[in-house]
Amino acid sequence: MMPQIDKEMSKDALFTFANELADAAAQITLPLFRQPLDVSSKLEDGFDPVTKADKDTEQKLRDIIEARFPAHAILGEEFGFKSGTAYQWTLDPIDGTRAYISGMPSWGTLVALSKITEDGSLTPLMGLADQPYIKERYLGWISEDVTEASLFSHGADKKNMSTRQCAAIGDAVLATTDSNLFVNTPTENLWLKISTQTRLNRYGGDWYNYMLLADGHVDIVLEQGLQAYDIQALIPIISAAGGKVTDWQGNDPMLGGQVLACGDASLHAQIIELLNA
Amino acid sequence: MMPQIDKEMSKDALFTFANELADAAAQITLPLFRQPLDVSSKLEDGFDPVTKADKDTEQKLRDIIEARFPAHAILGEEFGFKSGTAYQWTLDPIDGTRAYISGMPSWGTLVALSKITEDGSLTPLMGLADQPYIKERYLGWISEDVTEASLFSHGADKKNMSTRQCAAIGDAVLATTDSNLFVNTPTENLWLKISTQTRLNRYGGDWYNYMLLADGHVDIVLEQGLQAYDIQALIPIISAAGGKVTDWQGNDPMLGGQVLACGDASLHAQIIELLNA
Repeated sequence: MMPQIDKEMSKDALFTFANELADAAAQITLPLFRQPLDVSSKLEDGFDPVTKADKDTEQKLRDIIEARFPAHAILGEEFGFKSGTAYQWTLDPIDGTRAYISGMPSWGTLVALSKITEDGSLTPLMGLADQPYIKERYLGWISEDVTEASLFSHGADKKNMSTRQCAAIGDAVLATTDSNLFVNTPTENLWLKISTQTRLNRYGGDWYNYMLLADGHVDIVLEQGLQAYDIQALIPIISAAGGKVTDWQGNDPMLGGQVLACGDASLHAQIIELLNA
Repeated sequence: MMPQIDKEMSKDALFTFANELADAAAQITLPLFRQPLDVSSKLEDGFDPVTKADKDTEQKLRDIIEARFPAHAILGEEFGFKSGTAYQWTLDPIDGTRAYISGMPSWGTLVALSKITEDGSLTPLMGLADQPYIKERYLGWISEDVTEASLFSHGADKKNMSTRQCAAIGDAVLATTDSNLFVNTPTENLWLKISTQTRLNRYGGDWYNYMLLADGHVDIVLEQGLQAYDIQALIPIISAAGGKVTDWQGNDPMLGGQVLACGDASLHAQIIELLNA
């Protein structure tokens, strides 16, 4: 007898659902983009804007997910953790809030779907990263038997993404959101060790850097201080495109923190060695 | 008797011509964007990529301009200066080459048209800045009697741009392409004096930062080491949108070098004071 297929949790069904989520998010984020926003500050110490768009979008995504999958867990940047069983959705309604409020179209809506394993850890399954102003939608799937990393842009046909070969650090394009985040931290020397050997360094970008890596334009993304919701959606896309993403020790990056992504696995191994020498 | 109007040099005629130039450039830049490129190095010391797209685009723009306005001067990043009379075209076929080769859609094609005055200096007249992947085209015009700063995006109707009020440096969003360019230079202390007082700093962006300023999302752009072709096309757009752009001493920025642009003239005056204290 064939095993019963859970059609609701198939790649096709979940990609359709991911598109529904992305469309709903864009209906909130896009009309407010480049409009005067009521920007309040999350933290007393430092500037971390929370916009109406951020909160409204996450609430909308939660509503849609809870209606369809009431048993699943949900973790979101704005409204925290709702426990559940079997699967977890991880949401960053607007990754790159600073870009969003500055008019830069490098923000994106990130949605991850992961299996909850018996020990409570998460195994990545699906990732969605959507940029509705540029009109780019990235989708990734990584299960035991199927992987897919796709880019849909400007209504064009689906593009299958793959990372590029780049075995030498001297040939590599490195991207990170803000190199100043390493300055005067214990990891400044590690940042300098890596970033002074590369061919070209690019700043800004947030989640978008990882998608450029998945699509074969960037070779290394090196960051620290990430949250789980900053990275989980990107992992299935990077992995399905042939890239390698871990923490700086080479371990599971699902909880965020220090993250290293490389398009070429041999380059990844070299950088892990440099980071832990 | 009415003065004879030079229809060929009217705003409408030149905007039509600018659109023709932008379309021709996009036909070269866009198919090569995110494709494997033959990236050679301009400088022995440091990485300054010149791509086939860069050279082919400038040649195409020169051909179109020379056919239409054979007497005008042309200055371009790739093929230097051709002397002429009455007017000068200044071309940067791909501003943000590093973004271009990294897959980031923050590069743009810049075209400036300026009047050549009797003493040989340039008076800005028209600017074009085009990003065909995002599908955004910025056009500016500044003459004695007419100013216009327009954004055409995604085939939508024209949007009239204007800078925003921001009189206090503590409220300002500051953008610069790469803050590392100030490190270990004589201006590092000036950069730190300004950038530590602002509300939010954004990196990356190249020409695009100036357009975000013209459209009222960014308050300050502070840069050094610019070439004439990096800034001339942006000046009519910023000025027509109500912004102020000068060098760090408050003088004519048409030759590049150190450039300060502000959306709010009173903020510009404060920063000039801080830079020259």
